[in-house]
Amino acid sequence: MISKKIGRLYGIGVGPGDPELLTIKALRLLRAAPVVAYQSADDKESVARSIVAEYLTGEQTEVLFHLPRATNPQEAQPIYDKMVEPVAEHLEAGRDVVVLCEGDPLFYGSFMYLFTRLSGKYETEVVPGVSSPMGCASALGIPLSYRNDIFSVLPATMTAEKLAAQLLNADAAAIIKLRRHFAKVRDVLNQLGLASRAKYIEKATMPQQKVIPLNEVEPDNVPYFSMILVPSKYQL
Amino acid sequence: MISKKIGRLYGIGVGPGDPELLTIKALRLLRAAPVVAYQSADDKESVARSIVAEYLTGEQTEVLFHLPRATNPQEAQPIYDKMVEPVAEHLEAGRDVVVLCEGDPLFYGSFMYLFTRLSGKYETEVVPGVSSPMGCASALGIPLSYRNDIFSVLPATMTAEKLAAQLLNADAAAIIKLRRHFAKVRDVLNQLGLASRAKYIEKATMPQQKVIPLNEVEPDNVPYFSMILVPSKYQL
Repeated sequence: MISKKIGRLYGIGVGPGDPELLTIKALRLLRAAPVVAYQSADDKESVARSIVAEYLTGEQTEVLFHLPRATNPQEAQPIYDKMVEPVAEHLEAGRDVVVLCEGDPLFYGSFMYLFTRLSGKYETEVVPGVSSPMGCASALGIPLSYRNDIFSVLPATMTAEKLAAQLLNADAAAIIKLRRHFAKVRDVLNQLGLASRAKYIEKATMPQQKVIPLNEVEPDNVPYFSMILVPSKYQL
Repeated sequence: MISKKIGRLYGIGVGPGDPELLTIKALRLLRAAPVVAYQSADDKESVARSIVAEYLTGEQTEVLFHLPRATNPQEAQPIYDKMVEPVAEHLEAGRDVVVLCEGDPLFYGSFMYLFTRLSGKYETEVVPGVSSPMGCASALGIPLSYRNDIFSVLPATMTAEKLAAQLLNADAAAIIKLRRHFAKVRDVLNQLGLASRAKYIEKATMPQQKVIPLNEVEPDNVPYFSMILVPSKYQL
């Protein structure tokens, strides 16, 4: 009787943008994998793939998957289920699959959709990565939080009232998913007197990195890879 | 006229414990540095140094510094000022100094005490690292937060009432600085009905890593490198 070899699934964080911010472990696993999978919008290059492009061997099979956007979670379930099928097929055929994830795989990452569907069936290992709030803090050169600070990650999708309450609740914060919510966020920061402490950065650690004074940011021009950090109110 | 060469200061995150979780950039800078500095308690080996021990060249000058514990910030200022002097002397003598930081340098890190005192005087670069909440999530194999979650880092030093309010406020959380506060934290999690969702881990990604069911943890035996993750209440 021949026992069937099943592939291993790896979710690896590739960090915030600079290829040198991959971990040594992520690089080792990436180079050894016969199959590399990543998320991609229909019309755009995958950012995760572009981060690791220089490390790919040229002999790896690449698998793209598309996350449905702006659908309600209920309707999206069959789409997610279908999305993981090509990855599952490679695992069934005995091939290890490395899934690339911007930042960290289990922290606001697209890998989680694969993880929840496949980790029960296939041996799975997750390699943590440098997450964007830390990448942004280093690029900006500002201490983010210390001692007994409460630090919160706040998606800009919430209402102005809720965002204001959350900012007052936290000692330090990272505001993510800015894009079309930028103007609202800036208004709230101004109202709370936090605008001078808050720092805006886009494409942190990438060659196109830009730090723009909060009051000079054009609200119609805010990319997905942008963030506002509100560093700790305490001084060291 | 001879212009004086001044050293560069690097704060590098060495990640949560596994030496393979250093970034490629951190490893490059570490190996090239003539001086390596790190925090150390008087009687104990430095954890940050032990993480990178295998990468040290054997020809590097090592500088230990001690953070004052449990003093009020006011009294601690002259101690911090004195603490950074040996590092400043190496920089003045033209030698680059790499400061090792567990996790990420600007996220609850000891590097910030040096950063606030030296970065105005010396060229300084910070290399972000894998932070412990992400290291713990990967080690536990649990998705921590997604979509529009509010994620909070909550130091266990706060009162039970405040901790309860913060846990109700967040969709996902990492509770840090557990040690002698563990019993209080567990009580709060039980009262809120969060104990089944919460996961305890110590020394994540290190050889001594332990995952212990919350109700089996001995409160008197909780080390500094421990954390409780309360993953997102939402399902993917």
